[in-house]
Amino acid sequence: MDKLKSTLDKIKPIDNSLVESTQIRLDNLTKPKGSLGRLEEFARRIVAITGKKNPSLAKKVIITIAGDHGITEEGVSAYPSEVTPQMVYNFLRGGAGVNVLAKHVGAEVVVVDMGVAVELTPHPDLIVKKIGLGTQNFAKGPAMSREQAIKAIETGIEITEQIIKEKGVDMLGTGEMGIGNTTPSSAITAVFTGKPVQDVTGRGTGIDDKTYDHKINVIQKAIELNKPNPKDPIDVLAKVGGFEIAGLVGVTLAGAANKIPVVIDGFISSVAGLIAVELKPEAKDYIFSAHASVEIGHRSVLERMELKPILDLSMRLGEGTGAALAMGLIDAGVKILNEMASFDEAGVSREK
Amino acid sequence: MDKLKSTLDKIKPIDNSLVESTQIRLDNLTKPKGSLGRLEEFARRIVAITGKKNPSLAKKVIITIAGDHGITEEGVSAYPSEVTPQMVYNFLRGGAGVNVLAKHVGAEVVVVDMGVAVELTPHPDLIVKKIGLGTQNFAKGPAMSREQAIKAIETGIEITEQIIKEKGVDMLGTGEMGIGNTTPSSAITAVFTGKPVQDVTGRGTGIDDKTYDHKINVIQKAIELNKPNPKDPIDVLAKVGGFEIAGLVGVTLAGAANKIPVVIDGFISSVAGLIAVELKPEAKDYIFSAHASVEIGHRSVLERMELKPILDLSMRLGEGTGAALAMGLIDAGVKILNEMASFDEAGVSREK
Repeated sequence: MDKLKSTLDKIKPIDNSLVESTQIRLDNLTKPKGSLGRLEEFARRIVAITGKKNPSLAKKVIITIAGDHGITEEGVSAYPSEVTPQMVYNFLRGGAGVNVLAKHVGAEVVVVDMGVAVELTPHPDLIVKKIGLGTQNFAKGPAMSREQAIKAIETGIEITEQIIKEKGVDMLGTGEMGIGNTTPSSAITAVFTGKPVQDVTGRGTGIDDKTYDHKINVIQKAIELNKPNPKDPIDVLAKVGGFEIAGLVGVTLAGAANKIPVVIDGFISSVAGLIAVELKPEAKDYIFSAHASVEIGHRSVLERMELKPILDLSMRLGEGTGAALAMGLIDAGVKILNEMASFDEAGVSREK
Repeated sequence: MDKLKSTLDKIKPIDNSLVESTQIRLDNLTKPKGSLGRLEEFARRIVAITGKKNPSLAKKVIITIAGDHGITEEGVSAYPSEVTPQMVYNFLRGGAGVNVLAKHVGAEVVVVDMGVAVELTPHPDLIVKKIGLGTQNFAKGPAMSREQAIKAIETGIEITEQIIKEKGVDMLGTGEMGIGNTTPSSAITAVFTGKPVQDVTGRGTGIDDKTYDHKINVIQKAIELNKPNPKDPIDVLAKVGGFEIAGLVGVTLAGAANKIPVVIDGFISSVAGLIAVELKPEAKDYIFSAHASVEIGHRSVLERMELKPILDLSMRLGEGTGAALAMGLIDAGVKILNEMASFDEAGVSREK
């Protein structure tokens, strides 16, 4: 609990005076004022987050955390749980979507096991920090204990701070793998937003109509059974969350505490971002929403955080795939600030 | 006229059987079907355009064409015309927005003068192919002769084919620079769509309310005076177009004729794309719309071509800036196809 508390205390509001002074610098570059739209927003906010006048985002790291879910016993997913460890091995071999897209934008992927339901074969690039062999089935009781939820968040913080120390990270991305994990994500979204479960529940990896109705029913009953308290984010996370979600709460908080921008991926990573913001509202300004997921609940999560997604490419893969692409665009915004010529430098006339 | 005719004849429909077979290959990769959304669409279409099973988009070239506009005499822009040549020099020194973003995605920028109103200082990287020293003021008569319009399109084709021959281009982007050029673009949009001028006219580089009302009035009167015939795209281009717009019509047609994808930038480049499609509807499937510009007329142009923009970042700079960013995303889609592991390769279980 000490690590969580000290991390929350360390998160300070970003420096809004830097937002204004950076816009003045952007307005001096050879383009009509504001004509690079959100690229300028990215540049302003990265300066205000890092406190650096000419920040570099060269070192990009996506932390992809895997975990399994007891709730899959209820038959809520199109894929079997064995896919979680199989995909972890795929990440380690570089064959998954996130590997390809991270490489494309020059980002590194760090793979973490925080709760895969089987013991994985050791691998030099795999960080194993299991909180348990999958969560409990939250249709029958809490997914994890309150102590486990805190430990998982703190583990996420510790892993992130270790990576920051070792690699000197400029920008973090979040990603996840866990068969069944849209179910806890929809449950968490329903609890925080107060919206009906059917309004925040989608088809995950692609379930049919019957399974979809069943999934909604399972989530509704689980919320009635566990009574998660929306005023207590740890309670919500423990009762209807997941280990990888908790770990990503830690990644997000660690980024904010260390003045590093955090690019949250799709639905599940955004739910983790939301819990971070519920724990510490100031964390919000350190977060960029990568993309609008096809998963219907995602919109409600972003609305609650008042975040506007950068991309809308009808993606719903997770893993950090959207985060990778968005990191490339945020980097582009910072390069505009660092590399474009000013009106004076270029000898270009200003507005009449 | 021979070059234009032979180029139009050379443009064939893309191979839709390749769209289907590529989707089957995408469905075998380790991800739920369709979960990479538009990235999969990009991969499918690039295969169908190029006819290559595993295409590479390594060599990216943005052709940015500059031209001046007699219509600026009417006081329709926030910037003086001298900015057009000043920005050309800025492009050549690498200080403009398009230079920074092209470098970010690994694209080369080729700068062409097809109608800047002054003679430019020679530069080894500047292609000078002036059709005239700026267009005529189309508030008083046609912007150019029909012969000039055809010559400008054919020059755009020739430049592009020369670049393809010299550099071996995998993907083309279009961009432009020309103070005043949202005015002809809005006029062209109004003529083809039949929409009221005020519905397709925006504030360009940032004009005030009074200038905005004046701009709408100038365009309305110019259309009444010149009577461009929407059934005859060359007539529209000649009467209310511009040299850089005509040149980009040629770039777009040359891309389609040579089975090279063309990423059209914002409003002005899209108007050029629309003229290409009005001349040859089959050209449409070779075109990707990079982004949704803030310029209000852009939406109508894309609707008429039935193209959905890739990005929506509130940009309105032109030059090819949006094209650069979108090229990076299309490339990402192709890399998914080329680099991701299949279920069999990775030993990952399929859907239940």
